[in-house]
Amino acid sequence: MPLSTHVWETPLRVRYAETDAMGIAHHSAYVVWLEAGRVDWMRSIGLSYADLERAGYSLPVVELRVRYVAPSRFDDELVVRTGLSELRSRSARFTYEIVTAEPHPRQLANATTQHICMRAGAVARMPDSLRAAVERTSAGQSAG
Amino acid sequence: MPLSTHVWETPLRVRYAETDAMGIAHHSAYVVWLEAGRVDWMRSIGLSYADLERAGYSLPVVELRVRYVAPSRFDDELVVRTGLSELRSRSARFTYEIVTAEPHPRQLANATTQHICMRAGAVARMPDSLRAAVERTSAGQSAG
Amino acid sequence: MPLSTHVWETPLRVRYAETDAMGIAHHSAYVVWLEAGRVDWMRSIGLSYADLERAGYSLPVVELRVRYVAPSRFDDELVVRTGLSELRSRSARFTYEIVTAEPHPRQLANATTQHICMRAGAVARMPDSLRAAVERTSAGQSAG
Amino acid sequence: MPLSTHVWETPLRVRYAETDAMGIAHHSAYVVWLEAGRVDWMRSIGLSYADLERAGYSLPVVELRVRYVAPSRFDDELVVRTGLSELRSRSARFTYEIVTAEPHPRQLANATTQHICMRAGAVARMPDSLRAAVERTSAGQSAG
Repeated sequence: MPLSTHVWETPLRVRYAETDAMGIAHHSAYVVWLEAGRVDWMRSIGLSYADLERAGYSLPVVELRVRYVAPSRFDDELVVRTGLSELRSRSARFTYEIVTAEPHPRQLANATTQHICMRAGAVARMPDSLRAAVERTSAGQSAG
Repeated sequence: MPLSTHVWETPLRVRYAETDAMGIAHHSAYVVWLEAGRVDWMRSIGLSYADLERAGYSLPVVELRVRYVAPSRFDDELVVRTGLSELRSRSARFTYEIVTAEPHPRQLANATTQHICMRAGAVARMPDSLRAAVERTSAGQSAG
Repeated sequence: MPLSTHVWETPLRVRYAETDAMGIAHHSAYVVWLEAGRVDWMRSIGLSYADLERAGYSLPVVELRVRYVAPSRFDDELVVRTGLSELRSRSARFTYEIVTAEPHPRQLANATTQHICMRAGAVARMPDSLRAAVERTSAGQSAG
Repeated sequence: MPLSTHVWETPLRVRYAETDAMGIAHHSAYVVWLEAGRVDWMRSIGLSYADLERAGYSLPVVELRVRYVAPSRFDDELVVRTGLSELRSRSARFTYEIVTAEPHPRQLANATTQHICMRAGAVARMPDSLRAAVERTSAGQSAG
C-alpha cells in the first residue's frame, strides 16, 4: 500500500473557551485540533469526511498519543501539520505536529492517532475512495 | 396543561477543563450544566431522555437565556436547580438556577431554555410519556 | 457615546467535536463561536482582547441570549456576524447573527451578549483604547 | 520513592454535550474525564489540586496516551479508576481505566498521563504535601 507523504497545514487560533485557569490552552483542546487537521487533510486530497459518513463509514479513534512540548495561549496562531503515516486494509494512522504560525515555527506538540474503519456497526475495509485518493496523491508526489 | 412545580437538584463540581484564562468557569460550561440538570430532572420524574431519543423524539433548544450573577471556580461544588416552567403540545420551557452547594446557597446564575419537540425531522407533539409523567408529578404535589 | 455600526464577519467550520448525538452542532458550541466572533470584531477595529487582558481588563459575559433558528452540521461553513450594539461607561452589548456561508446566506441563529468591564476584581470603566477604537470606526463610517 | 497502589473510582455520566454525530462520546471527552479522575484521586489522599495551585504549583500534562476499547453513549454510567504509577522528584505518571458502572464492569478505555511539576514558570520539585500524602497512603496500604 503506497503511503502518502503529503502533509497538510491547517491554521487555527486558540479560542478563549479553549484556555484554562493556568492561562494556557487546555490539553484536551489539542485533541480537537488534531481532528480538525485530519478532516482538512482528507479534504486536501479530495475527500470529504462528511461524505464518507453519509456513505456509512466512520473512522473512530482507537488510540491517541500526544506529547505537549510547549504551551500555547489565547489568540495564539497555530498550525496543525497532518500526515497519513500508515494505511492498512481496515485501519490507518495519522501523525501530527502542532507548531506556531511564525516564519520560524516552534513545535508545541506532536501526536499520533490510530483509527479503524467501521461500517454498519462492524469493522470494515477502508472505502475505495480513500485508497484511491491516497494513491493519486502519492503518485503525484513520486512523479513530482 | 398542568405545570409541574417539581424542582430537581443536580450536584456537580467545576472541572478544570471548564475553567478559562480568567481563572473562572467559562460561560459556555453553564450551558452544558443546564443540560445535565434537564436530563436529571426528567430522570427524577421517571423519564429517560435516552429512551425518548430511542423512540425517535428529540427536544432541541430553540432559545437560551443565561444571566451570570457571580463567577464559579475550579473544584467549586455547585447545584443546578431545574424546573419545568411551561409545557405545551409541541414545546416546553425549563427554568434553572445555579447555586453554590452550601448550607446557605448563593445564586451564581439563572437561566431558561425553550425547546420544541421533533420527530422524524418535523415538529411533533410531545410524547405521551412526558405528559403523563409531568401530570403524575404535579398530582403528587397537589395531593401532598 | 457613538455606537459603531461596524459589523465583522468571522468564517468558521463546524468541527466534529462540536456535533452531538442528534447529528447537529451542539447548542453550547454556538456560545463559543459568538466569542470567536467578538474577539475578531475587536481585532477588526485594531484592538486585541489579549492585550486588554494583559493590561488588567476583562469583559466577562453577564447575560447571554441565543435563538436557534436552524441546525448546522459537521463541516458546514458558517459565518458569525458580530456588531457592537451598546457601549456604556462600564458595560457593552454585542449582537450576532450566525449564517450559512453561501451566496444567499440563511440565518441559523441570532444572539446578544451583555458584558461588564472588570479590572483588579472590581467593575471598572471601559479602557480608553476600546472607546477610542470604537469612535474611530464610527467616525470612519459616518465620513464614508 | 514509595509508589501508591491506591486506586480511586470516580463515577460519572456521559453528558449529551459530550456525544458526537457518531452517537457516541467524543474521544476528547475521555481526556476531560481522566482529569476529573486525577483531581478526585488527589482529594482521596487528602490533597486539593485547587490548594496546590493556590500555593503556586501546577502539574501540566506533558504526555497523554489513551486506548479506546469500546464506545460509550449518552447517559451511560461510567467509572474512572485512577492510580499513581510513578512519582519522581519533578514528574509523575497517572494510569487510568474507564469502565462501565456495572456489577461486572467492562473496560471502555485505558490511559496514562505524564506530568511535570511547575512553579513560578519553571520546572520545580513536587510539593512536600503531595509526597507526604502519597507516602501516608502507601504506608497505610502496606500496614493493611
